[in-house]
Amino acid sequence: MTFCMVGAGKVASQLAPALKEAGYKPLGVYSRSMEHAASLASRIGTTGVDRITALPAGADIYLIAVKDDAIADVAAELAPHVAPGGGRAVMVHTSGSTPLSVLSTTGARCGVMYPLYSFTADYRQDVGDVPFFIEASDADVQRLLLAVAGSISRRPVTVMDSATRRRMHLAAVFASNFPNRCYAIAEKIMRSSGVPFDLMLPLIMNTARKVERISPLEAQTGPAVRYDRKVIAAHEQMLSGDDLDVYETLTRSIHDAAVENENISEHNDKLRPNENQGDSL
Amino acid sequence: MTFCMVGAGKVASQLAPALKEAGYKPLGVYSRSMEHAASLASRIGTTGVDRITALPAGADIYLIAVKDDAIADVAAELAPHVAPGGGRAVMVHTSGSTPLSVLSTTGARCGVMYPLYSFTADYRQDVGDVPFFIEASDADVQRLLLAVAGSISRRPVTVMDSATRRRMHLAAVFASNFPNRCYAIAEKIMRSSGVPFDLMLPLIMNTARKVERISPLEAQTGPAVRYDRKVIAAHEQMLSGDDLDVYETLTRSIHDAAVENENISEHNDKLRPNENQGDSL
Repeated sequence: MTFCMVGAGKVASQLAPALKEAGYKPLGVYSRSMEHAASLASRIGTTGVDRITALPAGADIYLIAVKDDAIADVAAELAPHVAPGGGRAVMVHTSGSTPLSVLSTTGARCGVMYPLYSFTADYRQDVGDVPFFIEASDADVQRLLLAVAGSISRRPVTVMDSATRRRMHLAAVFASNFPNRCYAIAEKIMRSSGVPFDLMLPLIMNTARKVERISPLEAQTGPAVRYDRKVIAAHEQMLSGDDLDVYETLTRSIHDAAVENENISEHNDKLRPNENQGDSL
Repeated sequence: MTFCMVGAGKVASQLAPALKEAGYKPLGVYSRSMEHAASLASRIGTTGVDRITALPAGADIYLIAVKDDAIADVAAELAPHVAPGGGRAVMVHTSGSTPLSVLSTTGARCGVMYPLYSFTADYRQDVGDVPFFIEASDADVQRLLLAVAGSISRRPVTVMDSATRRRMHLAAVFASNFPNRCYAIAEKIMRSSGVPFDLMLPLIMNTARKVERISPLEAQTGPAVRYDRKVIAAHEQMLSGDDLDVYETLTRSIHDAAVENENISEHNDKLRPNENQGDSL
């Protein structure tokens, strides 16, 4: 089986080497930047190009890993080149929020292989740890993509339609992008006090690992869930601007969820079930 | 060295067994709930009481791990009992946001041992993984608390004043309580689509581990940092209430920080430095 990589960014530069190691033969890498194309191409022993139609037309899979807004344009240019009159070539994109229809309207065989992960360009990550979500234009392509994803990942490969995948992408924003922003605010607060951010890493890992055992709803701790008005007011005094908005909005979200979870009013003592417990967070 | 545990909640039930294993001898456990006091006391081979003055007066350390609002009252009752006329006993609380002065105004020798962690009551956690922050009424007590914390933790033990500790607690809310709330919203979105939350765990761990290598400011990914208006609008369509508020507030925070970081306006193309990169998140 052969593939071309369309894109040379974060996703492409993690998936292309993983595919090669799993036995798929690279036939070319495209990027608008010749430098990026050549760099990734040389890592996997193939040729980089900066025009889509310069890619070889005979590959089995064209893996499109470009930004969401560019997928439709790339597909419109790629389809007549690699699959004129409905050829064998399969076009596959990797986007959570882009429907399969963006590819299928070209008439080509197509699919989606969405990696639920946050890739970084600058070091090699373990693609084996990535859950993939698959969608396909037909049963043959679905079998193909299940095999491809299964050959590069040890995690579950799940068949999922475009609407559900879009919701998964939304969930991933909450599970990854937003926690990372909160880490960044924590880092800023610590830096301003001359405390190294490294001291926060055990708590960050502890918090992430905890939800492997218990639901995050049960795992919630902190002044917001206890509704400790004195601590909350003192914290708000130390914040301003966007950081204060984030604090207030998440504090309200935590408190409202706790009230809903316990089905009690905020003035009910039950909201503080562990009056004597003490809680470092 | 001997100690009494004042409190039997999340922090107390993790610290007391760790202290016992490090060679400190427990002389008693207090909780307002006799059941909680007896339960923790039996785990560490001592006696539980539900009145503070029923604790033995001769211990070296009284570790106060009760909720923030209760510390002052507990200390006021404990001090004349265990350290009349300025005795040897040391009163220590474990709170991030409570100043040492709450204890020192009693006239007793005192200190703070703040564990930067999010403890859970129901299973034994690794106290060795916890960074501690120490404050003391005098150099002798500081030496004592450095030794105590150092004997139960492999992580750094840092001397820190009350004002800085309060900022550390605020940072910890951002690094732990708020990410956990975001996990809970992700779980809710997935559950409503019939997708098991387990599939999100690799991404959650991947996101937490990433900031061990690079600053969270550099690690930021997602539609907010790319300012992908189409994806953001589609996400907002799927949300309502507090969840929508959290989405909007954090999206703005991420975007503003990216603009500030790059020192560019939001309409500048540089905000999309990797137009061809593609990014699963």
